[in-house]
This record gives sequence, C-alpha cells and structure tokens, in this order.
Amino acid sequence: MEQPGSDAVAGTEAVRRLIQPRSVAIVGASSDPSRTAGRPLRYLLKHGYRGTIYPVNPRAESIEGVRCYPSVEALPAAPDVGLVLVGPDWVAESVRELARIGTPSAIVLAGGYAEVSEQGAQRQRELQEARGSMRLLGPNTIGLVNVLDSMVLSPSVALELHPLTPGRVGLASQSGGILGSVLSRAEARGVGFSRLVGTGNEADLEVCDVVEYLLEDEATTVIALYLEGLRDVARFRTLADRAAAVGKPLVAFKVGRSEVGARSASSHTGAMAGSDRVYDALFEQHGVIRAATFSDLLDISGTLAAGRRLGGKRLAVLTSTGGAGVLVADACGAEGFEAPSPDRATVERLVTALTGDAEMAERNPVDVTLAGLSSEIFRSAISALLDSPSYDALVVIVGSSGLAQPELAGGPVLEAVGGSEKPLLVYVSPGAPNIVQYLNRNGVPAFESPEGCAAGLAALARMSFGRDGRSPETAGQGADAGAGSGAPAHRLGSVALMSGRLNEVEAKRLFARFGIPGVRERAVQTATAAAGVAREIAGGEGRVVLKVLSRDLAHKSESGGVLVGVGVGEATARATELLTTVRQRAPDTQIEGLLVQELVSDGVETILGFTRDPQVGPTILFGAGGVAAEIYQDVALRLPPIDRREARAMIASLKSYPLLVGFRGRPRCDVDVLADAIVAFSQMVLELGDRLVEAEINPLFVLAEGSGVLAADGVAVLT
Amino acid sequence: MEQPGSDAVAGTEAVRRLIQPRSVAIVGASSDPSRTAGRPLRYLLKHGYRGTIYPVNPRAESIEGVRCYPSVEALPAAPDVGLVLVGPDWVAESVRELARIGTPSAIVLAGGYAEVSEQGAQRQRELQEARGSMRLLGPNTIGLVNVLDSMVLSPSVALELHPLTPGRVGLASQSGGILGSVLSRAEARGVGFSRLVGTGNEADLEVCDVVEYLLEDEATTVIALYLEGLRDVARFRTLADRAAAVGKPLVAFKVGRSEVGARSASSHTGAMAGSDRVYDALFEQHGVIRAATFSDLLDISGTLAAGRRLGGKRLAVLTSTGGAGVLVADACGAEGFEAPSPDRATVERLVTALTGDAEMAERNPVDVTLAGLSSEIFRSAISALLDSPSYDALVVIVGSSGLAQPELAGGPVLEAVGGSEKPLLVYVSPGAPNIVQYLNRNGVPAFESPEGCAAGLAALARMSFGRDGRSPETAGQGADAGAGSGAPAHRLGSVALMSGRLNEVEAKRLFARFGIPGVRERAVQTATAAAGVAREIAGGEGRVVLKVLSRDLAHKSESGGVLVGVGVGEATARATELLTTVRQRAPDTQIEGLLVQELVSDGVETILGFTRDPQVGPTILFGAGGVAAEIYQDVALRLPPIDRREARAMIASLKSYPLLVGFRGRPRCDVDVLADAIVAFSQMVLELGDRLVEAEINPLFVLAEGSGVLAADGVAVLT
Repeated sequence: MEQPGSDAVAGTEAVRRLIQPRSVAIVGASSDPSRTAGRPLRYLLKHGYRGTIYPVNPRAESIEGVRCYPSVEALPAAPDVGLVLVGPDWVAESVRELARIGTPSAIVLAGGYAEVSEQGAQRQRELQEARGSMRLLGPNTIGLVNVLDSMVLSPSVALELHPLTPGRVGLASQSGGILGSVLSRAEARGVGFSRLVGTGNEADLEVCDVVEYLLEDEATTVIALYLEGLRDVARFRTLADRAAAVGKPLVAFKVGRSEVGARSASSHTGAMAGSDRVYDALFEQHGVIRAATFSDLLDISGTLAAGRRLGGKRLAVLTSTGGAGVLVADACGAEGFEAPSPDRATVERLVTALTGDAEMAERNPVDVTLAGLSSEIFRSAISALLDSPSYDALVVIVGSSGLAQPELAGGPVLEAVGGSEKPLLVYVSPGAPNIVQYLNRNGVPAFESPEGCAAGLAALARMSFGRDGRSPETAGQGADAGAGSGAPAHRLGSVALMSGRLNEVEAKRLFARFGIPGVRERAVQTATAAAGVAREIAGGEGRVVLKVLSRDLAHKSESGGVLVGVGVGEATARATELLTTVRQRAPDTQIEGLLVQELVSDGVETILGFTRDPQVGPTILFGAGGVAAEIYQDVALRLPPIDRREARAMIASLKSYPLLVGFRGRPRCDVDVLADAIVAFSQMVLELGDRLVEAEINPLFVLAEGSGVLAADGVAVLT
Repeated sequence: MEQPGSDAVAGTEAVRRLIQPRSVAIVGASSDPSRTAGRPLRYLLKHGYRGTIYPVNPRAESIEGVRCYPSVEALPAAPDVGLVLVGPDWVAESVRELARIGTPSAIVLAGGYAEVSEQGAQRQRELQEARGSMRLLGPNTIGLVNVLDSMVLSPSVALELHPLTPGRVGLASQSGGILGSVLSRAEARGVGFSRLVGTGNEADLEVCDVVEYLLEDEATTVIALYLEGLRDVARFRTLADRAAAVGKPLVAFKVGRSEVGARSASSHTGAMAGSDRVYDALFEQHGVIRAATFSDLLDISGTLAAGRRLGGKRLAVLTSTGGAGVLVADACGAEGFEAPSPDRATVERLVTALTGDAEMAERNPVDVTLAGLSSEIFRSAISALLDSPSYDALVVIVGSSGLAQPELAGGPVLEAVGGSEKPLLVYVSPGAPNIVQYLNRNGVPAFESPEGCAAGLAALARMSFGRDGRSPETAGQGADAGAGSGAPAHRLGSVALMSGRLNEVEAKRLFARFGIPGVRERAVQTATAAAGVAREIAGGEGRVVLKVLSRDLAHKSESGGVLVGVGVGEATARATELLTTVRQRAPDTQIEGLLVQELVSDGVETILGFTRDPQVGPTILFGAGGVAAEIYQDVALRLPPIDRREARAMIASLKSYPLLVGFRGRPRCDVDVLADAIVAFSQMVLELGDRLVEAEINPLFVLAEGSGVLAADGVAVLT
C-alpha cells in the first residue's frame, strides 16, 4: 500500500493517463455488442472517444470497423491503458503481457477475487504479482467514465444513455454497481459529472489515488465519494485537508451505519469496515461532508457544483402552491435555516410585482398564488427576493402547473438567476423529472425532495462558513500545537521504564507528565498510615476518598474497592473494611496498597479516553462522565492530532456542554484548561504510538474557571 | 366544529355522496379548457365520469358537448355536488343558491379566505353562513379525485395524466398543492390510489371527515394523510383507534418539525400547529405510522397496500450488483432488520440455481453476479429465498442491466412472488422509473431509494407486530384502567377546596390523593421546631432535607431555599441560615414556614409532569430526572388516558431505562409501581380537567423493587 505523499507526482500522472488516455487496448473485445465483453468498445465509439483504440481478439479482423490485433504482443505500440475482458483463466496472463510491453496501467473488470473467498484472494495476489510496476484498477470493478473527454472504459449499461451531461462533479466509488446507479440517476436529474471511477477491490489503485487525481483536475470542482471502507486513513486525512485548503468539497456517502450493513460491506470488497462513528469523527474533523442518504450524495454534489456560497442562513421561499412552501420551509428549518419576513422595501417590490395585497407579501414563504403563473410576475418576484438584504438564499417552488409547461416553469428562474450571486435552489413539487433535469443542466440546483433541498443548503452552509460558523480564513486562528509540544524526548525517557498494565498512581503519573494533573493523593501500605495521610490531605474535619491500589482491579468500584467521602476520623476503620471487602469479593487480586485521595466535591465529571479502532486507528474520546457517557452516548470522537480549536469543538459538541459553561446559575467551568488537557492527551497518544494499548481518565473533573482540571482516576496499558 | 362521534352516519353519508356523486354541477364552468375554471369539466370528461354533469354558465349553450344551464336555479335537479368556480365576489351567493335547491355538498376551490388575512377570515364566516346545513369542502382547496370511479372534481394539472392508476391507498391532504404533488409522484412510481381529497381551509369538512369515510370505504385499505395541524384531536384519536382495531393503517406525513415550518403552516391554513413532539406522542400512542420524509409517505403507503405482513425481522437480500446489496442491507439494518446467512437447505438450492460456488451462496446479501441476469436463475433464487425458513421477507435488487430490459428485470420477480405469502420488495438501483412503475402497478412494492425500502419494511413491522413486538391480538392483555379508577367523586370533593398555586405540601397532598405517595415531611413555623421534627424523621444521627415552604417560590433551589443532607444536630442553625438566605435573595417572598423532609439517598430520580399543548391539549410527560431531562431531552410524552401498558411503554422508551432495571449491578427499581403512578397521574389530569393548569412531580424517586416511588417535590396550579 502506498504511503501518504510518497511517489505522489508519479502516482497522479499514472492515474491521469488512466483516466485521460491517448490510446486504449481492449483485450478480449467481443464482436457481439450485446455481451459484456462487447459493450466497452461499442460504448467507446458511441460516446465519441477521440484517441486510438486497439481491440485485441485473435478471431476477428475488425470489430465495428476498428482493426483488431491477435494478441497484446502484436500491438503496434503500448497503449496508455489496457482494459482486460478475457475469461477468468486468462486475466493474469493478459495483465502480465500488458505490463511487459510497457503499458502504464490496466483495468480488470472481472470479479471472483478477494471479495468472494480465500481462493479468490490468492488469485488477487497472483494478479498483483503479474502487474509488476504497472498500475491496476480493479479487479471487480465497473471501470471508469470520463465524461468530459468522451472516454468510457466500462460495460455499464448506464452508458446506453448518450450523450452524458458534462459537469464539475468527480466520483470515486468503491462499488461498480453504484457507479452505474449514480450515473443513470445523475442523468435523470441533469446533474453533470466530469469523471467517474470505480475502484472495486483496490488491489492497487484505491479511492485515495482517484481523490488525488480529482484534486488536481481543474475541471472537477466537487468530489463525490461512495465508500465502504478506507484502506489508508492517514492518506485520506492528508488529502481531505488539502481539499479543504483549496476549497474543493469532498462529499461522502459511506455505508456501514448499521451492523448488518457493515458485515455486507466487508464481505463485498474485502475491506474491513471501521466503526461508523469513527468515520463520522474523521469526516467532521477533516471537513468532509457526509451525505446522510444515498440521494443526498447527488443533491449535495449538484448544489455545491453550482459554485455559489452562502452569506448566512436566512432563506426566502417563493411559491405558487402554499403547501409545498410549508414543506420546504419545514425541511430547511430542521437544518437551522430561518425564514424571516421580508423587509419593507422588498414588500413594496413584491406588492408591485404581484399587484396583490400587502398582507400576503409580508409573509415568507411568499405565495404568489395563481398570479405567479405569469412568467413576468414570477421573474419580478424572484429578482425582488434575490436583491433583498433580508435573505442569503432563495428557494423557488415549481408547482403542478409546471407539469404542462416545463420551460415556462423554469424559464423565469433561469432569466432571474444571473442577476445575483446568491444561491437559488428550486424544489419541484409534482413528479416532473423533466423540469428537474432542465434546471440542473442549466446550472440551477433543482430537487425532487424537500429533504434533498435542505441537505443541499446545509452543505452550502458548511462549505461557506464551516461547522462552527467561522469562515475558513479565520478558522485557523487561535489554533496551535497545544500544550505538551515541547521536549517529548525527555518525557518519553521517563515513560520508557513503564510497561504493562499500570496501577492508578502510575497511570495518573503518566498523564501528569503530559500536562494533565491528578488529584492530591498518596499510596500507603497500612490502614493506620491511611489515617495520617487523610489528615494531611483533608485536615481534621475533612473527607477523603479511599481506594485499594491494584493493577489487577479493572473495575474497582464494582469490587467494593472505592469509598468516597470518608471522614478523617474514621479513616483507619474504613480502610480496614475496604481491604476486607476486596479480599472477599476478588480474592485473587494482588493488592499493592491503599490510596488516599483528595475528595473533589464540585466540578463536572467527564471522561477522556483512547481507543484503537480496528480500521481507522488511534481515536480520542471525550465525553460526559458518570452514567451519561454510556446511557446517552454523549461523547465526541476525533483522530489525533487534536489542536486546541478541535478540542474546543469536541467540548462544544457535547449535549451536556451547558453543564460546563454555567448551567442554571452554577459557576462556569475551566473549559480552556480542559481543551489543553485534551490536546495534551492527544499528544501523549501520538508520542507513545504503538506502545499505547489502553488509556482512560475517568473521571476527569473540570473545576470552576481558573481552577483547571483534575484526573481522579485512570487506567493505562503500555507495551 | 363537529364533536367526536356526533352525527357520524349522516356525516359519512354526506361525504360519500361528495366523493361518489351521481351528479355534479360545475358552477362557473369556463368554455376555455386551458383556464382554471375550464379544466374541471375537461378532466371530468377525460377521465370518463359516468354520472350527470351540469355546467352552469349563462354565456354558453354547451361546453365540450355538455349542455349548460344559465344559473343554479335553472338546474333540472339538485346535484349531489356543486363545484364552485365563479369569481371571488360571487362565491358566497353561488354557495347559498346550491344550498337553497337542496344540494347536499359543495366544493369551493378559491383562496383568499382565512389563510390570507382577517378580512379573508370574515369572508370565510360569510361562506359558512351561506352554506347553511349543506356540507362544504374548502375553501382554498384543490378539490378531490376519485380514481376508482373516474370522478375528478379538481383543476389540478396532475389530472392531465390519464388514465390514473387505480389502487387501495386513500389520501386526505390539508394542502391542495401537495395533493397534486402526491398524485403525479404516485403515478410516476406506479402507486395506485382509491380517492384523494384536499380539505384546504376546512371551514366545514375537515381531515377527520375524510378519514371516517375512508375507514368505511372497502376499496381503501391504507389511509395516507398530509397534515399541517389537526382541528379536532379527540376525534382523530377515536378514528385512529378504530383504524387500528380493523387493521387499516394510517400513514401520516406532518409538517412542523422545525419552528420555521410550524410558522408557515399556521400562516397557510389558519390551523394552529401544535408542538411537533406532542404529535409524535399522539401518533405513537394511537398506532399512526409517521412518515419521516415526504417520499416515505408514498413508499410506506405503497408497501402496506400490497397487503402482506411480516413474521419477523430476518431479511434476505438478493442482488446481481454487490454494492447495492450492501446499501439496502445497511439501510434496513438501521431499522433493526437482520440479514442472517441462509440455512443449509437454502444454500443447496441456491448453489443448484446459480450453478455457482457454495462460499458465495452462504452469504447474505446473496450476490448472483452476472449469472443472475438469466431470468431462469433469478427466478429460482427468488423462490429459494422466499421458501427458506430463515427469512421473513426478501428484498430483490434490480441492477443497471435492467435499464435496457425493464420486463426482463421485473418479470422473474412477478412470476416468483405468487408462490409465497411473505413480503417481497424491490430496490431499483439505477435511475429506472419505468421498472419502479411496472412493479408497483403489478402489486410488488418497488423503491427508488434504499431508505424508502427500509421505511416500508419498518412500517410493515409496525403493522405486523406493533411497536413493542407483540401482535395486536395480545397487545391489549394486561392493560387495565389502572390505579385510582375508584371513587373519583370522593377524591374530587376534597380537591374542590384547593385552588390557585398550591404550596409544596398541598401539591404533594393532591398527588397522594390520586395514589402517588410523597416523602415523609412536616411543616413547622420555627427553626427550633425544625430540629425536633428532623430528629423524629431521621433519628439522632440521620440527615434530612430542609426547605422554605412558599407558594411564591417557583425555583426554590435557585433562590437558596433548599438544603439537602442536613445533620439533625445542626438543623436549627441551618434552618435559620436558610430563612436568612431566602429573605435576602427573594425579599418579596411570602414565607409560609419551613419544611423538614426525609432524605431519599437511593433510588432513581425521574420527573412526571403535565402540560397543556396549545393545540393538542393535555399532555403527560415522564422523563429522566435531574439535568438529564433538560440536557438530553430524555422524556416520553403521551396524551391521557394512559393505561398501564402505555405507562410501561413510556418508561421503556427512555434512554435511561437501563438505570431503572439494574444498571451495572445496582438493584432493579420498582417499575411496576412507577407505571401505576403514571396511570394515577393521568387519571388525575382527566378528573381535574380544565381546572388543572400546571402539575409536576420533580423529583419522583423510584426506589428498589418492592419499595415503590416517592414524590420528593411538586408543584400544582388549579383554578
């Protein structure tokens, strides 16, 4: 597997020649145009490929008027791409021959490899060996479609559609069937694509290679992804960051939301599907827009490809059919958009345009009723709303009357849209695919569902001012490498001596080394000594926490190994009791001593932990403490490194965030130091690398502003 | 507004004659077929209405060959329905004339009434006066479409489509534009309707009248609703229960999920939109299936109209295109469906059918790959999966290959489906509306989106075995009138003396009277007396809760009026301190005394309250206590009356339910008594009726099994 950034130029160039070849060989081209092996040549010709085609077929002189060659060796020159269509037993040999004559890349459509069985995986390894240094797309792929260059290397029946609508959306799909589905649905809706590539089993080229190419491809302004599971998460993150930096949106639909789906995905591509919530975190963190439904993938991509940006979330809705206006306003409202009433000047323009009554024009949705069926009136109303300083975007609704006259419905929209830079979207209320197609083809995002329109707008908002409402230019300000960026060598030196499962004291010492302080505490060997330490920590009248110290006891509380709020006077007696309980309940436990701790009586309990996702890798979890993390799943996940800005986003994303910032008159907590602690924890995870097996601070108390945080308990396992 | 059940037979008969008229008058029929007033007659003729048509137009002898009459009075007989198309100034007069000649019902399409302004509302009252006892549909409606009787009374351009697909789904829509949208979309998908009625402003006939008719209409087996807000919640609840009893599903799409949508809805129909979560509760409680997206309304209705029921949630997915199988399995998995591997016998049948390898056939989704493009193989595989005891339903995926041959794709499905009673659904992966339409028209639910397929299956599950997994037959068992059904007169007698804002002691006394016990407590007048009572309640070493008693203090804790865990020895001092604090912080408070309470140290905190939704009415809220209710919105809503079964469903629906049934080794709580308390609270709400303004028990402690519940604090306001 390629490393991030390695060989990047050469890799992109290879993919470019694969997608934009000057010549292609079709190895195993059939002269029967209805067969799978006959379709690619027919489609190449049908879509008007302008490069050289070399069909390879020993039993034909020519196919569809194109001269055939008896073998790969007989070709007059090495093609830019070889498309392999031969029977299963001949695939590896054809690949080897293509490599031998110096073909830079090949495509293997056939299935029956790693996606079906261990035997298949063995065949895939043979294929890998056969390709040598030649790049390979597939196996088990539908191939690729380069709409802008009329170059198609695929048997997908979706290519019966002709001509394809050119556009600015590029697609990388890990499923071939889905590529065909996206293409035919996009055609029906009028959403244009630049290039579509199916990566299939990803024996060599994988989805990141395609993303990298599309990032460099100037004709592509939006990158759509259909994902089942990433093979190289680090590389994807780098590419996503690069995409964010240049403002080219990545829109991903990923299967695996349910366990059953995840299972199917892994059986389908052989890719190990990672935990879906970790993918959510990854997308969130790196600015990838996740499509919630399959249909949203097209709706969002189409909206962003129109190239406009939002200035805010104030929406005007213009309709000639009341109910649909409500429907759209409701769906958009659920995405946080407002629909304020028009300003006075706009009302006046509307009244003039509609020759109607002012009371109607003061509302939003603006209902032009039947009067709006006049193109002139409709166009004037659109212009008035686009010009209004009260709105950041306009949704126009085309009603049933449009069924009979698609151009009449779409015409005024197209005429008015050029007069403004604001986003204008159209919801088509009746089942009228021709109107949707007509508008999308003409650059106005049009939608078949109110929810799709809302999803498009939400994505626009995300691209226009980021997830936290800041513009991309200022978003980076205030971010920094965070606490603990200094002197890792020194810190690691002292950590080097630790290994295995640490006890609580050692674990908190580890966290403290990275800048997360623990509660005051001291380990003692006897119950009597505990009383003395308790007095030291809490004074004569105070209370402390008593714990059994043992690296064997994973769930101290459940084994009776923790007593909270022990009075100093009763410390010896309670400590003795504690030891007795643990010895009874967990007789095999190796007890290392007693731990006397400061009792933290205020502050908000949180949890800060580390997990290693089987596919995505090291993941940081921050969440509400106590039972809330588990019961309410009130946690935020991120992949390290986490800077201070990201840490703040994690904190603010919790449902229980209000508890941290002064809930019902309580004091505000020290969110600044909490963010530093998350950054420090992430730094620790990175520095310890593979040595870190487990780490969790639970609870991490967040004290009042100015008082910081305190780790009250923790576990860590090192190798 | 009609009362529930009143005049039911006469009402239904009037609606039946409106929807299935033997004769219709079209008052103001235009001879220009392109005008709104010209279309209804044209559509009536086009769709083949077999009754008598009386166009009323003083300036035409005949229109489209149908004899015209100069006025309503000139009609040879009173029609079953009068459709009013005259100009705005003439509507009321036409309605009055129709009523005068004995027409049983009329339809007014025109807008400009209560939906636009107060002036319009006045015009609507005039219309009401003009109709007398005649029934009226509208104003501001698109009319109605009776597909089964080829009877259309509407200018909707969707009626250009001809012939309409007959089916078993009836629609009542509060929006006319949406009716046209549903009709044209349904036609495109091949989902057939029986009757569609737009109720518009509901000056007289409202959505419940249509539901009542559809419930009695044998040709309708599924009732779809497009709602903006209900006018008569009690009547709707009665009808929903009747629908559940006869097994005729109600599927509702309701706008108003977002505040902005709710605002538009109210400006559109003049109906006050209730809080959306209360609607969720109402639908949940009365077995109404809520469509989450507009598209789901059709997908769910179409699925249920096919008439099959599910035996469980085990799903087989059959595909020839791997990626789409994953997509569907994932979407259905998110709805709780499983996709287990086939049993041995089924694997053998599949291997035989597919002449393929066993490793492939052991998976689910079952991927027939290219071999499945043979109709014979596809049909065999479908039969094998439908016959398998491992599955309760089958989803077949049609891939891109179907694009070229719609009948080839759909044919095997139609041939195999009759051999089984199990639900068979089809997801069409490419954009191929013709295949979707072909299958739906032939009675096999087919879907354009994986999420729509999953929504259809989820609705089937809901109809087949209810929300709690029990069949409708047994679901009622164990339900009863609940605690507190006896002697309401006696109880109300003593409550009759209470009024205004009760203090805490009085409020808990009220709750106790209905069977919800409070904590041990006593009110005293002096700090010294508090110490004595504390000793009585908690013994010498114990702790108590001290509160200021005052009906003025809505938020006692925030005013410093509560001290928890006060030692008996310090009670006098702390009580004095308490009084001082409250006098300082809330100097205007009328202090009625001090309250000394038992300290409840275990048990789970919950909240049980009552709100009066502005539209839906009395609503009971039960939820997690403490900050969780607010922060995590962990609450369940229901409308009274609540029986024990419903109370249990409320409890079990909380995210924090695990805390009540023995979380991490803690004792199980007394859920039985908790359910009784909810039933008792609901009983109290019903008995007090309009007298109850506010009521809330917070916290209600749920103790360990056998120990019941304790109301620790409460508020109540009575008039």
